[in-house]
Amino acid sequence: MTVCDEIKTQAKEICSVKTAKKTLPITQWLPKYCCQWFQCDLIAGLTVGLTVIPQGLAYAVVAELPPQYGLYSSFMGCFIYCLFGTSKDITLGPTAIMSLMTAQFASGLSPVPHNATYALILTLMCGCIQLLMGILNLGIIVEFISYPVINGFTSAAAIIIAFGQVKHILGLQNIPRDFLQSVYYTFAKLPQTRIADLIMGIVCLILLAGLKKMKSIDWGDENEEDIPVCRKISRKFIWVIGTARNAVIVISGALIAAACISQGFDTFSVVGPLPEGLPTFQLPNFTLHNGSTTVSTAQIFSDIGIGFGVVPLLSLVETIAIGKAFARQNNYRIDANQELIAIGISNILGSFVSAYPVTGSFSRTAVNSQSGVKTPAGGIFTGCLILLALAVLTPAFYYIPQSALAAVIISAVLQMVDFKIIMKLWKVKKLDLIPLGITFLLSFALGIEYGILIGILVTLFIVLYPLARPTVKVTLRPETSRDIVILQPNQGLMFPGTEYIMEQIEGYSYEGPPKMVVIDCSHISAIDYTTIQGIEGVIGELKRKKCSVVFSCVQIQVLDVLLKADIPGFRSANTTEEAADFSTLPDEEKCINGIGHDEIDEDEENPIQPLLGNTRQNSIA
Amino acid sequence: MTVCDEIKTQAKEICSVKTAKKTLPITQWLPKYCCQWFQCDLIAGLTVGLTVIPQGLAYAVVAELPPQYGLYSSFMGCFIYCLFGTSKDITLGPTAIMSLMTAQFASGLSPVPHNATYALILTLMCGCIQLLMGILNLGIIVEFISYPVINGFTSAAAIIIAFGQVKHILGLQNIPRDFLQSVYYTFAKLPQTRIADLIMGIVCLILLAGLKKMKSIDWGDENEEDIPVCRKISRKFIWVIGTARNAVIVISGALIAAACISQGFDTFSVVGPLPEGLPTFQLPNFTLHNGSTTVSTAQIFSDIGIGFGVVPLLSLVETIAIGKAFARQNNYRIDANQELIAIGISNILGSFVSAYPVTGSFSRTAVNSQSGVKTPAGGIFTGCLILLALAVLTPAFYYIPQSALAAVIISAVLQMVDFKIIMKLWKVKKLDLIPLGITFLLSFALGIEYGILIGILVTLFIVLYPLARPTVKVTLRPETSRDIVILQPNQGLMFPGTEYIMEQIEGYSYEGPPKMVVIDCSHISAIDYTTIQGIEGVIGELKRKKCSVVFSCVQIQVLDVLLKADIPGFRSANTTEEAADFSTLPDEEKCINGIGHDEIDEDEENPIQPLLGNTRQNSIA
Repeated sequence: MTVCDEIKTQAKEICSVKTAKKTLPITQWLPKYCCQWFQCDLIAGLTVGLTVIPQGLAYAVVAELPPQYGLYSSFMGCFIYCLFGTSKDITLGPTAIMSLMTAQFASGLSPVPHNATYALILTLMCGCIQLLMGILNLGIIVEFISYPVINGFTSAAAIIIAFGQVKHILGLQNIPRDFLQSVYYTFAKLPQTRIADLIMGIVCLILLAGLKKMKSIDWGDENEEDIPVCRKISRKFIWVIGTARNAVIVISGALIAAACISQGFDTFSVVGPLPEGLPTFQLPNFTLHNGSTTVSTAQIFSDIGIGFGVVPLLSLVETIAIGKAFARQNNYRIDANQELIAIGISNILGSFVSAYPVTGSFSRTAVNSQSGVKTPAGGIFTGCLILLALAVLTPAFYYIPQSALAAVIISAVLQMVDFKIIMKLWKVKKLDLIPLGITFLLSFALGIEYGILIGILVTLFIVLYPLARPTVKVTLRPETSRDIVILQPNQGLMFPGTEYIMEQIEGYSYEGPPKMVVIDCSHISAIDYTTIQGIEGVIGELKRKKCSVVFSCVQIQVLDVLLKADIPGFRSANTTEEAADFSTLPDEEKCINGIGHDEIDEDEENPIQPLLGNTRQNSIA
Repeated sequence: MTVCDEIKTQAKEICSVKTAKKTLPITQWLPKYCCQWFQCDLIAGLTVGLTVIPQGLAYAVVAELPPQYGLYSSFMGCFIYCLFGTSKDITLGPTAIMSLMTAQFASGLSPVPHNATYALILTLMCGCIQLLMGILNLGIIVEFISYPVINGFTSAAAIIIAFGQVKHILGLQNIPRDFLQSVYYTFAKLPQTRIADLIMGIVCLILLAGLKKMKSIDWGDENEEDIPVCRKISRKFIWVIGTARNAVIVISGALIAAACISQGFDTFSVVGPLPEGLPTFQLPNFTLHNGSTTVSTAQIFSDIGIGFGVVPLLSLVETIAIGKAFARQNNYRIDANQELIAIGISNILGSFVSAYPVTGSFSRTAVNSQSGVKTPAGGIFTGCLILLALAVLTPAFYYIPQSALAAVIISAVLQMVDFKIIMKLWKVKKLDLIPLGITFLLSFALGIEYGILIGILVTLFIVLYPLARPTVKVTLRPETSRDIVILQPNQGLMFPGTEYIMEQIEGYSYEGPPKMVVIDCSHISAIDYTTIQGIEGVIGELKRKKCSVVFSCVQIQVLDVLLKADIPGFRSANTTEEAADFSTLPDEEKCINGIGHDEIDEDEENPIQPLLGNTRQNSIA
């Protein structure tokens, strides 16, 4: 199916009633909703809520926003996804990579530190772009990002995020955001380490690792029914503590810090005062006032720049990767375009409640699935818990030590680093190490956005390379004198291969041109305009050298395009044999030759008209 | 040939003696140099010089630099290209598109208006990137840019450049650079038009158009020998005036303005005082001092951003397009990689003499070719003329009216706009209108750099689409009960198609899975790591559903990769018949099934491990 057909099919699909129903997947499960599902969803939703509250506070720090923005970003996605999502497991909210992206493209660029204006505009636009992509069925583009690129990007992002938290563990101030500079300044300022923060951070890291291990203890009992109830309960308790370990650590840290502060010791760097209550529901500001000067909307948009492309794309990649994994495990299907619509609407409405861009979170989706969620309604309970926390708990957040939040982030992101793949790729497919390495290294050297973009381009280049260097089978007839040269390209004539094939054809004319070149198009099933331009140039060029060109075995859809193009001197034959019988130059065209110097007119600075040699046509026109 | 082979071949090639010779093409023509060639080169070189001096002054204004930078940019390329270039016709120097790019990425971003620091850093880095690309034989990437994209980009750039000059024709001040804003403000400030500038501009435009027409008059004489000498001379005179029309117009304009000024009238907006003499030869500054604050090197690099990618690429595209056209006409070949080396060195050394990025200029290359240049040595005379002008003429440049320079630019760029292609594409290949339209419109809406980047991505998407949606031939055996399903994809399993094929395979397991799926790999000649991950996920998934998977007819190079990957449960057979005879599940693997909830561990925020379903492997590992 060509892209053209696909566009038509999609246009039809968009307008169907089935699509209208598909757009609200809640209509599929709500009628069947029962009390047992409600219990399961409630438990799962609250468990996820206990994870998202500490994570949200921590990720907002990564996003270079005040901690409460992590919670503002966490609830809207839960409610919206319940209506529009196709996976029962996925929970939307702030994630490590989206937070880093927000810092990179929005809050980190804002002339006013820790101001959310840039981030909210990014959220709104990101939502609009995702919604549009979903409506246009562009979810397919996620398939153009290969595993090694995602791997290299994720590992690099994890290292950058984790290292960015080291300053909080050490209690250092004024470390720049740029990775290379932050490494330098972190080491330079090492003597200023605050011992209390360091101890708190390290203890938290160790406890987090321990609780995670504990949760997944294999008790070795084959038969669950033989175990006494009390042991069952204690195991369940350990599981709950392990699953809600972020909340446990953060609460314990806050209690210790609060105790110290109440005793008059200013031992720990704490989060400090947060504005109480829920965010107001309002359209984001489109201008930013920085003292006496105002940053205009146009300036903000231009500052965010490629962020508007990279953030929606990565947000999609993250959700789809997670969704596919859980869908496969739990035997259902997710629809990339519907997911785009769900995230898009979540982001659009999120921007009204001061959320920065959200996407599917792997850790919380796993918690959700393991807690036995049955429908996306679990998100409602998560969302309500977050709203409750915002309404009631904000004064308590004052005491959370920053190093405890940093430990939560580090323990979350370090598992994203995966170097085992390098050995595997070396063994299996060395070529794939190139995009992996380029993505990983450029993420540090140029910034993660350029890392992934250049990585994607490199993988596309690798896939397209065979298209740009098609093999051309050459037959000379008669073999000794080369009167007739028959060339047979092995695949479609699309633009990446045009230059190469045209050079092959022209190549035969540089030293003693043959009388005739026959181009056997048996294997050519598609052709584009760039190639037509090339053919036009080559036919003109060879004609000047008194060598004629005939196309043979042209498939009907290709012939149609070639005839429509009305190429001067174009001739085709049904078979190669028939082509070889053509006179070397048709009489009426013999006059067209000897085109001289004056033919290329001085069309000033025009780099396109001469491209691929259509100069002849221009000068005649 | 795979990319891997290509890399090896290239590595060998780089180290050969032949390449060492090829790198200095001057060694090929200098030994044959003769007196007649000298005469031709001298005349052509001086003619080009008369074109480049007014154009250089004008293009510097487009680049938002003081006019003398246009001349600084014009001479180094002439000398360097003589040593390293492969085309006798190409002349390097400032061009309309490079000037617009410089304004966009460098001088327009500089916090100090009309300061060249940003531009010179861009030139230096652009040169380094091009030299590196040339050494790595990356000239091939120019083939990945299709004709419609270049066309859309060039038309948009021409309109933006031409409109940007309207303010000079009207004598308006303080018009912003952004296209949409400049349109608004130009109309808003229309009442402030300076009549003298307007008249000068319009007269210049009319004269330029007239002189251009005059140059290409067809005198209708068949036999040149019958014409009297005086008529021959007068025709030659008209040709020279037409060819050097930019110089004629600018000099006339300057004389008129000088006359007015000497009479005490401040009628015209003129160029004003320029620093006299040649630029000093020095390494560009890497920091910029703006009053009391200093802009750091890192900040400058981050401001230029994707300019480091877009500028070298467009510079290459422009040169190659021009070079190919003239090479075809004059029957020689150019080498994209050698051209990259030539432009790269020109830019690197250019940055030492205050040049902004240069590339091959279409108008001057055409003048060069038509003036009968024989070797790249013509550039030496052009370069010397420019140096002479800089040394002697700078005081005279004071009087050049800005509206005359604007007329030179407008008359040069308006010919780049080509709307005829729209009709042609509509007739021949409607699909190619999409990248054309996207590139053109986004160039205005988002900026030309995003226009061309998104345009390139759209064309690559169109070419890659068939790879992402391969056709899979399905055979059921026996036809009624679907015990065995045979699937035969029609092409290589590269990452863009992985998801789709895996979904097709899995699709058979959602409702009553078959006992066995046979994947017939007859047409699969390549496979990558992303696909291996997909296969791993699908085999695990189907195994859990007690459906076994067998690969048949696997080509040796693909089998090699699959075996190295060590996929659990992977089985292959020589033929599809043999595969169908396999037991539905081998005994030793029957135990691996019923994998439950706890299998996906809560690897927090890790979007890559679940990708394509390799979760099973992780949880077992």
